[in-house]
Amino acid sequence: MNKNLSIGIDFGGTTIKAGIVSENGKVIKKTIADTFAHQGPKKVIRQIKLCIKELLINHPGPVLGIGVGSPGIVSVTKGTVSNLHNVPGWESVPLKRIIENEFALPVLIENDANTAAIGELEFGAGKKLTDFIMVTLGTGVGGGIITNRSIVHGAHGGAGEIGHISIDFNGRQCNCGGLGCIEAYIGNSQLINRVKANFKKNKSSLLYHLHNQNPNGLSPKTISEAATAGDLYAQHIITETGAYLGYALTSLINVLDISIIIVGGGVSGFGTPLFNSIQTTLQSRVIKSLALTIKVIPAKLKNDAGILGASALIFNSQK
Amino acid sequence: MNKNLSIGIDFGGTTIKAGIVSENGKVIKKTIADTFAHQGPKKVIRQIKLCIKELLINHPGPVLGIGVGSPGIVSVTKGTVSNLHNVPGWESVPLKRIIENEFALPVLIENDANTAAIGELEFGAGKKLTDFIMVTLGTGVGGGIITNRSIVHGAHGGAGEIGHISIDFNGRQCNCGGLGCIEAYIGNSQLINRVKANFKKNKSSLLYHLHNQNPNGLSPKTISEAATAGDLYAQHIITETGAYLGYALTSLINVLDISIIIVGGGVSGFGTPLFNSIQTTLQSRVIKSLALTIKVIPAKLKNDAGILGASALIFNSQK
Repeated sequence: MNKNLSIGIDFGGTTIKAGIVSENGKVIKKTIADTFAHQGPKKVIRQIKLCIKELLINHPGPVLGIGVGSPGIVSVTKGTVSNLHNVPGWESVPLKRIIENEFALPVLIENDANTAAIGELEFGAGKKLTDFIMVTLGTGVGGGIITNRSIVHGAHGGAGEIGHISIDFNGRQCNCGGLGCIEAYIGNSQLINRVKANFKKNKSSLLYHLHNQNPNGLSPKTISEAATAGDLYAQHIITETGAYLGYALTSLINVLDISIIIVGGGVSGFGTPLFNSIQTTLQSRVIKSLALTIKVIPAKLKNDAGILGASALIFNSQK
Repeated sequence: MNKNLSIGIDFGGTTIKAGIVSENGKVIKKTIADTFAHQGPKKVIRQIKLCIKELLINHPGPVLGIGVGSPGIVSVTKGTVSNLHNVPGWESVPLKRIIENEFALPVLIENDANTAAIGELEFGAGKKLTDFIMVTLGTGVGGGIITNRSIVHGAHGGAGEIGHISIDFNGRQCNCGGLGCIEAYIGNSQLINRVKANFKKNKSSLLYHLHNQNPNGLSPKTISEAATAGDLYAQHIITETGAYLGYALTSLINVLDISIIIVGGGVSGFGTPLFNSIQTTLQSRVIKSLALTIKVIPAKLKNDAGILGASALIFNSQK
């Protein structure tokens, strides 16, 4: 029996998911609460504490610590979370210290993209790897870089922003202020915008009809379904998405010489056609001596990825 | 008095420069030999050995080891050098073992761009830094990434190829097979090609007249002189070069969160206007939370940079 346990908190914009996780990656107990972001920091922090209390009451016995995967800018060393724009009044909150004081347990905080990478490292597709790049395709394009089985943090804990690799210095305007960032091409809503932008030339596409019936009907899921049904425009969009991501990863691989790319998040549900397109793009563009060993593989953690990744912060720190 | 000495070999395509260097970065003895690249591997290796012998004979006494900065693909772990296209018959040569066997001294081999970074780390602008990106602007655009005062090698020792960050996925064809690599815009000959490409619109430029008088007269140096003399087209070329480099570094800084960029190599002789243009581009494009602390500074090592960097491989390895 595996006795080492930790608590993982997936601190999201609308819900907080929390679980007690065993060292071999099983979620033993789980709870969910509303974030109540609009009610401000005090309420949000109370919700997080509530989740932890519930887990500890329902599962008495020792846990090694509490890991928190958080949006915003996370300072791992200071234990603070800032830039949470959807929580009014949330400036720089010392979340690590607050939780430590309440529960007298070690607490580690990490940004959610890095947490996803550490989750794959401990429990998922990166279990047997020492170095890989993790890309999470969702509302934004998140990333985490693992070398020697540790996350790369950089000077301010801001490393891994793969979504802000530019593929065109004259390209699309990104929310970050830059031009041509890959997120401005394949982030969830930008992906949907790309589909809509060429409807004129693709009026026979299932996607066009779907959009006419239901203006909110376009999503990675419906694009994927249309592609599987043989829709050429949907297939083109998926291939193009893979190519765009491939262009960005080419620059990164040429600089870091890391061979394995793990891709997760909602948009990765495009599946094999997406992965083939990324791989083909990398093979044709990366420096020849580095291109041979590149592998693009899907993330393994699905529903509980956030909880597992957060709990893995604790297990990973103990090695 | 500083007693620790090492030998640094700057193995170039046309000349081999070698020196005995003290731990505080003074070149105590120096020698130069032709590479005789066209005469094949045996001759080239003999030339390297000759340099080392000459140094050891003229400076009897202990040295800690021999560092070699080499072009081509260098495997630091295997100690081999491959892909030296200008030396006919040079496949994968175990240069480290060959020199170790001859002189019974520890030998370390590193590619020349990484050697430049380690030189700045030990003796130059990076002496007091733990993390920086080194860019060498010359025939190609070389790079080295230093984190925690060590070079980042990657899976095959190929990391640091900053010249092959793409700034435009539909951009200029690069020698490496990729598209839009920064080297295809600001590598020495591509820089000159950029100058020539817009002569039609810039017939009043000093550069146009210089080129008409002497078709081989364009160089980073003459462009710099024209800019200093007030030539607007030359000034534009320098600003544009800095902007291109800035676009590439933006992607890299967003991913690695490294604040300090050291720029060396011939083209860096453009000086302040170049550095200002890089800095301005980075300030406007890098993610805001990372942009504040960015500094772009010139490399300190000049003439003997190759020898110093190679000798630094030995000093750096002893820490």
